[in-house]
Amino acid sequence: MTAAGLYEQILQKKSFLCVGLDTDIGKIPQHLLSGAAPVLEFNKKIIDATHDLAIAYKPNLAFYEARGTDGWTDLKMTVEYIRSKAPGVFLIADAKRGDIGNTAAMYAKAFFEEMDFDAVTLSPYMGKDTVTPFLGYEGKWVIMLGLTSNPGAEDFQFLEAGSGQNRLFEEVIRQGAEWGGTDQIMFVAGATRAELISDIRKIIPNHFLLVPGIGAQGGSLNEVADAGMNDHCGLIVNASRSILYAGDNEAFDAAARNQALALQQEMAALLS
Amino acid sequence: MTAAGLYEQILQKKSFLCVGLDTDIGKIPQHLLSGAAPVLEFNKKIIDATHDLAIAYKPNLAFYEARGTDGWTDLKMTVEYIRSKAPGVFLIADAKRGDIGNTAAMYAKAFFEEMDFDAVTLSPYMGKDTVTPFLGYEGKWVIMLGLTSNPGAEDFQFLEAGSGQNRLFEEVIRQGAEWGGTDQIMFVAGATRAELISDIRKIIPNHFLLVPGIGAQGGSLNEVADAGMNDHCGLIVNASRSILYAGDNEAFDAAARNQALALQQEMAALLS
Repeated sequence: MTAAGLYEQILQKKSFLCVGLDTDIGKIPQHLLSGAAPVLEFNKKIIDATHDLAIAYKPNLAFYEARGTDGWTDLKMTVEYIRSKAPGVFLIADAKRGDIGNTAAMYAKAFFEEMDFDAVTLSPYMGKDTVTPFLGYEGKWVIMLGLTSNPGAEDFQFLEAGSGQNRLFEEVIRQGAEWGGTDQIMFVAGATRAELISDIRKIIPNHFLLVPGIGAQGGSLNEVADAGMNDHCGLIVNASRSILYAGDNEAFDAAARNQALALQQEMAALLS
Repeated sequence: MTAAGLYEQILQKKSFLCVGLDTDIGKIPQHLLSGAAPVLEFNKKIIDATHDLAIAYKPNLAFYEARGTDGWTDLKMTVEYIRSKAPGVFLIADAKRGDIGNTAAMYAKAFFEEMDFDAVTLSPYMGKDTVTPFLGYEGKWVIMLGLTSNPGAEDFQFLEAGSGQNRLFEEVIRQGAEWGGTDQIMFVAGATRAELISDIRKIIPNHFLLVPGIGAQGGSLNEVADAGMNDHCGLIVNASRSILYAGDNEAFDAAARNQALALQQEMAALLS
């Protein structure tokens, strides 16, 4: 998918919402647990309830790996379900991988060949050769961590780096933007520090940003849009827990839809 | 396992060798491919041929994930095989994960509960709260990326960080060493820049270092030992491709053993 294709979807759905599928088997409604594949069943219901409101889904790999091969099977079948139910949606593997060239090529194979993701999140610590193998796939994306939404972001990302004119997250974004085009690379910019998204926009006015931290983590959608929106939206804003676990009974999917709808309506207003 | 337990094994085996199980189905001997589980079969033969020479094994997750659920099954069965064949060996998941607290807890579950690894490699970019969930497991280890062995290490790890007195990899190691004790945390220090291991030892004289980059990547074992060995060895040196793919016919395991034996003999000399 191209950046233009992504923007087209955003206009059609009047939304830049990504639903994070951080599906924790310990948190899904009890009544699902007697089924053969509770996590997959839960994901399907969430997808059914939100696919007209969301332009992207983002399964978080950890929640699937924690359940071994069963989890990996659920992940693969979730991807296939999204592809059949909502063919044009943008599909992000939230994997935060990052390893040397020959290993990176294997991760690219895992997410772009073995499974049909459009994008994968990568950690920048090991540098350019950990990213380039992913850029060889036409139409696929790398989403590099820039500024993350968690407290620990302050440990290293805020350090003055190199010449001292940039903080590390700015230097990562500056260099990363040189490794591929605006149809190949986007950056993570956490909603919990919306004021810094303005600083990021000075470095990369045109790239898409993936913004986590709305909802359970406390970030503000309005502040993010103020700081980060550009002439082709340029934002994909993720919510996970606030949507997934909005309800805890048989009507959980309706509760999830309500949460997604509220966000989509705010987004429609911000886009107009 | 404690650091003392690890050192005891090193003395017993006169070795600080880790065999990296970066098993690429495209590179294993042809005759294995007709079997039901070629990668598992390959791994078993490598383990049989090297477990008296190696104190650690390090499956690289990417190579298993690239094959989806089949790969994940091979990984799990490889771990179980190592546990049955070489019960005292140190088992490292080379996963290079790193994510916010609730996600990190899921990765910890994947590697320390769903599978029985002793240690997992983590990327430091997102800071302390991405590491702490792993430290709650008694006897388990975190191996943080410090200075990696690849060309891209120079992109960010060498930047002057913070006060300008440290490069980023030094600052990562300095802070990381405060997050847990020498029985919980070790650091990756690449063999391809052995001279910098001396600088790392000034910050953490007592921690174990996991050293990749010997063999296919060109690092020197002697230089690494000169720069990094301490009074309890303090080194786990990994070789992957140079051992795994030493032979390409039915005698591949004997060829692998020869490579591992040569390294073990060098290590025995360095330890004495």
